[in-house]
Amino acid sequence: MSEALVFQSDFGISDGAVSAMYGVAFKVEPALRVFDLTHDIPQYDVWEASYRLVQTLQYWPVGTVFVSVVDPGVGTSRRSVAVRTRTGQIVVTPDNGTLTHVKLMLGVAEARELREEGNRLSGSELSYTFHGRDVYAYTGARLAAGRVALADLGPAIDPGTIVELPHVPAARDGDAVTGAIDVLDVRFGSLWSNIPHGLFEGLGVPYGGRVEVSIRNDTRELYRNTMAYARSFAEVNVGEPLVYINSILNLAVAINQGSFARAYNIGTGLSWKIAVRKAPRVVYE
Amino acid sequence: MSEALVFQSDFGISDGAVSAMYGVAFKVEPALRVFDLTHDIPQYDVWEASYRLVQTLQYWPVGTVFVSVVDPGVGTSRRSVAVRTRTGQIVVTPDNGTLTHVKLMLGVAEARELREEGNRLSGSELSYTFHGRDVYAYTGARLAAGRVALADLGPAIDPGTIVELPHVPAARDGDAVTGAIDVLDVRFGSLWSNIPHGLFEGLGVPYGGRVEVSIRNDTRELYRNTMAYARSFAEVNVGEPLVYINSILNLAVAINQGSFARAYNIGTGLSWKIAVRKAPRVVYE
Amino acid sequence: MSEALVFQSDFGISDGAVSAMYGVAFKVEPALRVFDLTHDIPQYDVWEASYRLVQTLQYWPVGTVFVSVVDPGVGTSRRSVAVRTRTGQIVVTPDNGTLTHVKLMLGVAEARELREEGNRLSGSELSYTFHGRDVYAYTGARLAAGRVALADLGPAIDPGTIVELPHVPAARDGDAVTGAIDVLDVRFGSLWSNIPHGLFEGLGVPYGGRVEVSIRNDTRELYRNTMAYARSFAEVNVGEPLVYINSILNLAVAINQGSFARAYNIGTGLSWKIAVRKAPRVVYE
Repeated sequence: MSEALVFQSDFGISDGAVSAMYGVAFKVEPALRVFDLTHDIPQYDVWEASYRLVQTLQYWPVGTVFVSVVDPGVGTSRRSVAVRTRTGQIVVTPDNGTLTHVKLMLGVAEARELREEGNRLSGSELSYTFHGRDVYAYTGARLAAGRVALADLGPAIDPGTIVELPHVPAARDGDAVTGAIDVLDVRFGSLWSNIPHGLFEGLGVPYGGRVEVSIRNDTRELYRNTMAYARSFAEVNVGEPLVYINSILNLAVAINQGSFARAYNIGTGLSWKIAVRKAPRVVYE
Repeated sequence: MSEALVFQSDFGISDGAVSAMYGVAFKVEPALRVFDLTHDIPQYDVWEASYRLVQTLQYWPVGTVFVSVVDPGVGTSRRSVAVRTRTGQIVVTPDNGTLTHVKLMLGVAEARELREEGNRLSGSELSYTFHGRDVYAYTGARLAAGRVALADLGPAIDPGTIVELPHVPAARDGDAVTGAIDVLDVRFGSLWSNIPHGLFEGLGVPYGGRVEVSIRNDTRELYRNTMAYARSFAEVNVGEPLVYINSILNLAVAINQGSFARAYNIGTGLSWKIAVRKAPRVVYE
Repeated sequence: MSEALVFQSDFGISDGAVSAMYGVAFKVEPALRVFDLTHDIPQYDVWEASYRLVQTLQYWPVGTVFVSVVDPGVGTSRRSVAVRTRTGQIVVTPDNGTLTHVKLMLGVAEARELREEGNRLSGSELSYTFHGRDVYAYTGARLAAGRVALADLGPAIDPGTIVELPHVPAARDGDAVTGAIDVLDVRFGSLWSNIPHGLFEGLGVPYGGRVEVSIRNDTRELYRNTMAYARSFAEVNVGEPLVYINSILNLAVAINQGSFARAYNIGTGLSWKIAVRKAPRVVYE
């Protein structure tokens, strides 16, 4: 039986681009199971593509083939790669930073350069702008269908050479843990930090305890307040902020049934820093 | 062969949440057929989730398993349930009103409390905010794949105890039929009332006849005018309003190729009332 | 094995309409493979529906059944048709111009009128507004599943009688090629013209050469400038315009990592004309 094939892109689903990729995959093997991660990655946002991969990859079976196409460099000589993660899934993508989180958080077990020759839909040679359809979907489908093996795609490459976007690790800093705001829970406006559950646990805050959260953009502080550390939203009042462990077990900040990001105009990326400490006891005398 | 599994949520499809649910289902059973109802339910809008279920459920085969996750109370002690409707489909959902329309319009034949113990993805115990993935998708997939039966999920519960959101029944009121505006046909801006076709027929208005439509929000009237009762939009002029029987056989109000909701700022819910009567004959003397 | 079934509509995916169509198809044949082209066609925009079909059709296998429902005339006596293209795919649709590009660019090999009698979901007779579910999805599913053949749907019709929307052919005009702006690459804001690669080649512009692009809306010129003819976006600077051959091998205009359509308020349709010529040599003396 074939492996699942999962597509991700910044193409949106309002025109025919994604459907053309499906058609190509279906032509390779009509029995193939094809799914979407998302096609709503903001245009050219390689960082978010990288994050969404690491957020979902491990919930799919070993052998699942992901094709991720956020590709500002399409048509240039940027390298294409196919990798097997240490968790056993495969990702086919331009090597432009899309594998940053997978490389750092899951690890790359095997990597191949994807050579265009022999791995391109026949008849597509005149088109230089849609490698998603002509190269990546086609190759991903052939991998998922077992028509070609990872080793057949091109020469082995050193996983260490795979492009990483700049990133700042989470850290313990005195009585605080600090990190970056990696991404938003898009629809609910929660902030997902890169501070792992284990690091936060070192502060010794119990469920129901209070923490002080500070958020900065570059050198400017945009938010500082105390809030509860809760298991989930509904443990605080509607409209109240909270810190919680999100679904990939990192520290996150939210407002119960509100949008923290919109409430305080918080963005994501390297310049957005968060620090969390046990809330100081306030004594009125 | 497995039953179809159909997901609904308020998660949107711009991040990895829905794909993680698909992965979990696919891991339970790679041959499973998984589909979406919609993931664009407005956040926390349990009423709309309830409506979309009743709108589509019966078009799917007996045995189809629906998983609906609009869950403002995730992580609290709110009950989870799995029910079999009188029409033979299964719904797995938090018991927060999501089953209102199904209970009232289709009927619940059998209901079980969904116990978390034994019905949760292993390894997900630290995550308290994504029961859609960890409990509901996992359990829905196991039901659809025949790995577990409804009766295995937890103790039987009285269908009468399933949570219902407040609602107002449609009624005959003198020479008018009255009801609430349940929901919009989102993209086209038509108003879908809860007045069933049969109740409206009692007014004796033939196709092509004219009716007077009045729309109130609480005590304020926002619209009153006469229009044709037509089979479909194109029987009136472009830009002209009409009353018609919608695809689930309730009375609806629209503008041909326009948006009635936007034209008159009409909303939906309990406070939005509609009354329809045969148009009075106007005689100029 | 069944053929693939691919749906397109202007219904959006925020309510239950598309899922009801899926349910109907799945009830016809649970093993059927159902996919989406897009459901984001702007409401009633038959031209864009027509374009998206021709953009994707050929990437699907021979025998694939497309169901396209953009249907401002639903419920009137407008004809329904099912056609086989010269490339071997089948399209089921209202005959309202949706087949314009398929007829002109691919050709129609066989056409049948789709008679409602015998090709309608049983029990749906009271609903006049959702032929997408009751007639088109139902018939498309039965075709894809092999339960019915094209010839069984209704009488043969002359392909020449299939409705075409007004259109203007691309042409050589002195030292320029001229055409219309057919459609946008929605998310990236590129302009897709109807000027085929072959016609443009007649100008003898090499990759890297410069062209002058003029864009008019009716009689008003909105843009005139020179830019590079490049293989793909990344061959010019970020923010720089370019002319390129798009993924269906027509001439297109874009800004690398920007939106040409938004930058210059360019729209699509018959009144939007583009002319491209070799850039004049400018000599400063």
